[in-house]
Amino acid sequence: MNFASDNTAGIAPDILKALTGGNDGFVLGYGNDDLTRAVERRMGEVFERDCAVFLVATGTAANALALAHVSPPWGAVFAHNEAHILTDECGAPEFFGGGLKLVGMAGVGCKVTPETLAASVADYQGHSPHQVVPAALSFAQASEAGTIYRAGEIAALAKLAHANGMKVHMDGARFANALVRMNASPAEATWKSGVDVLSFGATKGGAMAAEAVVIFDRALAANMAERRKRAGHLLSKHRFLSLQFDAFLKDDCWLRLARHANAMADRLAAGLAAAGHAPVWPVEANLVFVLLPKSVEARLRASGARYYVRSSRSLPGGAAIGPDRCLIRLVTSFATRQDEIDRFVEVAAKA
Amino acid sequence: MNFASDNTAGIAPDILKALTGGNDGFVLGYGNDDLTRAVERRMGEVFERDCAVFLVATGTAANALALAHVSPPWGAVFAHNEAHILTDECGAPEFFGGGLKLVGMAGVGCKVTPETLAASVADYQGHSPHQVVPAALSFAQASEAGTIYRAGEIAALAKLAHANGMKVHMDGARFANALVRMNASPAEATWKSGVDVLSFGATKGGAMAAEAVVIFDRALAANMAERRKRAGHLLSKHRFLSLQFDAFLKDDCWLRLARHANAMADRLAAGLAAAGHAPVWPVEANLVFVLLPKSVEARLRASGARYYVRSSRSLPGGAAIGPDRCLIRLVTSFATRQDEIDRFVEVAAKA
Amino acid sequence: MNFASDNTAGIAPDILKALTGGNDGFVLGYGNDDLTRAVERRMGEVFERDCAVFLVATGTAANALALAHVSPPWGAVFAHNEAHILTDECGAPEFFGGGLKLVGMAGVGCKVTPETLAASVADYQGHSPHQVVPAALSFAQASEAGTIYRAGEIAALAKLAHANGMKVHMDGARFANALVRMNASPAEATWKSGVDVLSFGATKGGAMAAEAVVIFDRALAANMAERRKRAGHLLSKHRFLSLQFDAFLKDDCWLRLARHANAMADRLAAGLAAAGHAPVWPVEANLVFVLLPKSVEARLRASGARYYVRSSRSLPGGAAIGPDRCLIRLVTSFATRQDEIDRFVEVAAKA
Amino acid sequence: MNFASDNTAGIAPDILKALTGGNDGFVLGYGNDDLTRAVERRMGEVFERDCAVFLVATGTAANALALAHVSPPWGAVFAHNEAHILTDECGAPEFFGGGLKLVGMAGVGCKVTPETLAASVADYQGHSPHQVVPAALSFAQASEAGTIYRAGEIAALAKLAHANGMKVHMDGARFANALVRMNASPAEATWKSGVDVLSFGATKGGAMAAEAVVIFDRALAANMAERRKRAGHLLSKHRFLSLQFDAFLKDDCWLRLARHANAMADRLAAGLAAAGHAPVWPVEANLVFVLLPKSVEARLRASGARYYVRSSRSLPGGAAIGPDRCLIRLVTSFATRQDEIDRFVEVAAKA
Repeated sequence: MNFASDNTAGIAPDILKALTGGNDGFVLGYGNDDLTRAVERRMGEVFERDCAVFLVATGTAANALALAHVSPPWGAVFAHNEAHILTDECGAPEFFGGGLKLVGMAGVGCKVTPETLAASVADYQGHSPHQVVPAALSFAQASEAGTIYRAGEIAALAKLAHANGMKVHMDGARFANALVRMNASPAEATWKSGVDVLSFGATKGGAMAAEAVVIFDRALAANMAERRKRAGHLLSKHRFLSLQFDAFLKDDCWLRLARHANAMADRLAAGLAAAGHAPVWPVEANLVFVLLPKSVEARLRASGARYYVRSSRSLPGGAAIGPDRCLIRLVTSFATRQDEIDRFVEVAAKA
Repeated sequence: MNFASDNTAGIAPDILKALTGGNDGFVLGYGNDDLTRAVERRMGEVFERDCAVFLVATGTAANALALAHVSPPWGAVFAHNEAHILTDECGAPEFFGGGLKLVGMAGVGCKVTPETLAASVADYQGHSPHQVVPAALSFAQASEAGTIYRAGEIAALAKLAHANGMKVHMDGARFANALVRMNASPAEATWKSGVDVLSFGATKGGAMAAEAVVIFDRALAANMAERRKRAGHLLSKHRFLSLQFDAFLKDDCWLRLARHANAMADRLAAGLAAAGHAPVWPVEANLVFVLLPKSVEARLRASGARYYVRSSRSLPGGAAIGPDRCLIRLVTSFATRQDEIDRFVEVAAKA
Repeated sequence: MNFASDNTAGIAPDILKALTGGNDGFVLGYGNDDLTRAVERRMGEVFERDCAVFLVATGTAANALALAHVSPPWGAVFAHNEAHILTDECGAPEFFGGGLKLVGMAGVGCKVTPETLAASVADYQGHSPHQVVPAALSFAQASEAGTIYRAGEIAALAKLAHANGMKVHMDGARFANALVRMNASPAEATWKSGVDVLSFGATKGGAMAAEAVVIFDRALAANMAERRKRAGHLLSKHRFLSLQFDAFLKDDCWLRLARHANAMADRLAAGLAAAGHAPVWPVEANLVFVLLPKSVEARLRASGARYYVRSSRSLPGGAAIGPDRCLIRLVTSFATRQDEIDRFVEVAAKA
Repeated sequence: MNFASDNTAGIAPDILKALTGGNDGFVLGYGNDDLTRAVERRMGEVFERDCAVFLVATGTAANALALAHVSPPWGAVFAHNEAHILTDECGAPEFFGGGLKLVGMAGVGCKVTPETLAASVADYQGHSPHQVVPAALSFAQASEAGTIYRAGEIAALAKLAHANGMKVHMDGARFANALVRMNASPAEATWKSGVDVLSFGATKGGAMAAEAVVIFDRALAANMAERRKRAGHLLSKHRFLSLQFDAFLKDDCWLRLARHANAMADRLAAGLAAAGHAPVWPVEANLVFVLLPKSVEARLRASGARYYVRSSRSLPGGAAIGPDRCLIRLVTSFATRQDEIDRFVEVAAKA
């Protein structure tokens, strides 16, 4: 019953097999190999357009490289208060971005609305050069609350961002989980809705350590190669990044793995709801958040379940967690088994 | 006949097996796992002292993190003119180090002498605060020319550095190759000779992507965890870094792999010398540099051999390469086979 | 009737005289002169302890140098949401600090309380190395609202900060204005209450362009000289900074000028209050903020008065400004004349 | 007999008078004033084209802002080994430029030739993304040796730089001194010869603390305002920078002051040459370098003369200074008097 994170799971079998299978022989390093070219082409097919692709080993690297690329040092990047880039990357965007400023915004379920964005951006206009300049919107898809933005929501935010001279970055550490819920193509979920740069995650989805910075307009990608290299994120035996992505994308492996994780989350949500512990936010990806009485939480912990207790200021209605309850985060993955879900629900449901 | 780089090889069998074997089950991310602790302890045994260990996926990351940690932004880091950190990392040390300055030094065979270091350091003294301040010496072991520093040489350089308030960093991307030639223990080759921080490479030695920043004095390691994280170099599924290092260090795997690579280099050097193409620098690790008539080089290339043509300003006696010859770099690895060596020598030796 | 800012005034007569009087002859540059030593000694007398002093030409430089000096790149600096360092320095602290993070806090009258600070700091604890680390508290004295912190308030904040391993920085662009209101000595208002580093402003107080970074513990000042130099803030003809500070401090000139500015603000506040426009925050320095009906504001503007219309989220009781009123900021200085005050009040008071 | 530096002199009378004369009344800060506009227009007249002008208080700031503006963090800026930006700014260009790399080049008399530049640039081509990218050429006019580049020399260097995608920066701390020797207009000496950005110094020429970053193509100036502000280099009482430049440029004051300084240098050079101590480099600005027997140097020092003893690796013919001589640098300024020159020569000439 390990629901601590989707990164506690190992490597999905198809991807591990690819790593092993691609180990033989000599291959030029640093991405100068045929497979890397093939992955780039494959990415173009997935997104229905030629795009620039840069593989790295961590999501923080992908996000920080992307944000530094779309914001000057005197830029402001707007994101939800509880976004990973603000709370869990130890200042990587600021470091990569030469001291850029992350501006946090409130919003229920870790989502921001166009109204909130408009108000925040307005705070940074008209006072040049004394203030940093609006440079980008960054949002997580799925969000840290496991909610997702529908294509129309993305388009509305992106339109507003672009109208203010800003770029749009999507932190897609869980892009696959969002996509399989969206009834939209990868293209519709990204650049067709206005996304300029995507951090496309494979690690949480089942890879070992593989993320892609996808820049939809090649002109915008100029010198990202140097930026990645000087950040130490160009792997020498780069083929092993490409092998992961190749297997991840092949035969819709990524979507299949994500569907499983989401299904497990749905089952968990349904079970908990039936037990009187309905999730606090809509379960739209592979994360389930529930407010539990402390006694229930203690019982779960005692039963061997693993998860994190979290705090949040984006509960519906601005609700507080209160002294008698705790908010727990349950994350499913490709490796989550149905019997673990059922056992967890059973423990939670005990009278 | 692929001698392009030691990073064109794949993963050594023992390490690949470890990756596969360690994939099952759930393990906490970000290094909060038992295996990572075990690797840290094992590293302590290897170096005969408790030390702080930070695993990352690239050598550039290891070097840049290490240098930024031992030099303030207004510091000068002294290294050979042709050191990897100056010529092949696209400014990573400067980026990580907030704009620190790398000062290049001349020296035959990509090695620097105490005399040269003393003269260079003197250039940066007595003019405070108008100049950057001597902060660290960085040297590669083995060097980019495939030469090595003996323990006494390291001690002499380190003594000088320390006397001037500087730290000592060793770029050990090929530390194993150097060590098996040195007749010294890992401790004698590093901290007992004055090295403060080591970039301990496993990738070129046979891992997929694994390097360790080893800081011998734990007090000096304060906040390296944050530094690594904000650089995007803390892997979420960190166990796969630990698995690589665990296998690399187990049963002297690393030394065995390095001995093979060095033996192949020795065989190559001997064969080429017998054919009238003696290496330009002593072959002390897994790199062989030879000056070849262009006709010979063309023949080798036509035969399918792969290697890089290089330039260098550190030939013995300050020699120039000249218009009729070219300097080629041949790199062996754990994966190099004797028959490739022999075939290469045969082609080179043809009348 | 120019109340736009205290930097719209010129140079106070005593200071201008000093600049002119100190122009003759040759003097070594970069602060290597007797007068600079004398200013440093004088500063020690003012603060009743030996301290390290670094003169620069702007307040943004003083703040950014100070904050970068007390926070590592992975540090969080806590300050009021509307502090100058957050809203008016275009990211200078982040730039100088290698990407440090400024964390905004709410508080009426641009002041923060220990409770708010404690809660904000707690948000950045216990999640290492994923989050930046609490490094410093920065507060403005007088604040951007013209309010001041009493010595006891500073001590309470500083105690909390120190208990959490943080340093305390005071942005004293208007330190003189605050001090003459405090009934405290310079020492009591700063290091005796726990301030570690002070940006001591003279420019707004009557100098041309002169600010001092005062570090009360000399050990903490190591390498600030290099930091200032590499930021381009070491003036070559440094004597002209020293001449300004020498005159500013001589015979309590700085306190006399501040008393005048404050008295003008008091008169303005009293007049406006009598006219039914009581200031929104206590007038404790040289700033007066009033919420005016838009018709009154228009009349004042038409009369030739100069000031800025501001927004604020730190009005008492969380009040909003509303559509029919505007918040105007009136700043007095050493150069403000009583007749301007009276005329302004007269126009504001018209039926 | 103070020849230590042109920054040991005070403020030239006309400029001091302007500062005093412009002190009255209220003027908006941060350059939002009529005089600043007038200075910008005047600069346009001087250079015969509309250009963007940013005033700052130090030459290091001007250089570092300029270089950071024309080079990305992964850029290489090529300059003479002994250029001020490499040796006397404590890493300011690297700091402002996010870790850009300064590449030093050799050259007699602190001047670089197109051949040297071409060879240096070639070292940084063809190895992307492993190396930093050629971004700019920076040269000092007059150079640190007091030599100057003629318009044709500048054009040749600039042509080469531009052909390689680089920008051209001129460090004109002593631009006036060079210009009055050149028989060229300010336009011919800068943008008409290919200079893109000029650090136009007034401080050494007679101002208190005033330098201008002049960007000849306005499109290239985008966001320099934010860059300057976040570096703390936008003065609040900005009028005092404008007053200095206004007076400096008015009625050719700057050229008149420079002519005096140069004439003093010429007289010094002629006198020393007649005494058997001919300058080591052509005296083309206000710096005179002579190699003196140590006994003569001791006599001069004893007589009260002030100057700096320097080292240099750019003596004609690669000559070394040797153990019995020392290289002294003598700097004249607007404030140097003929009788000081004559007395110095007299002491130097004694049998």
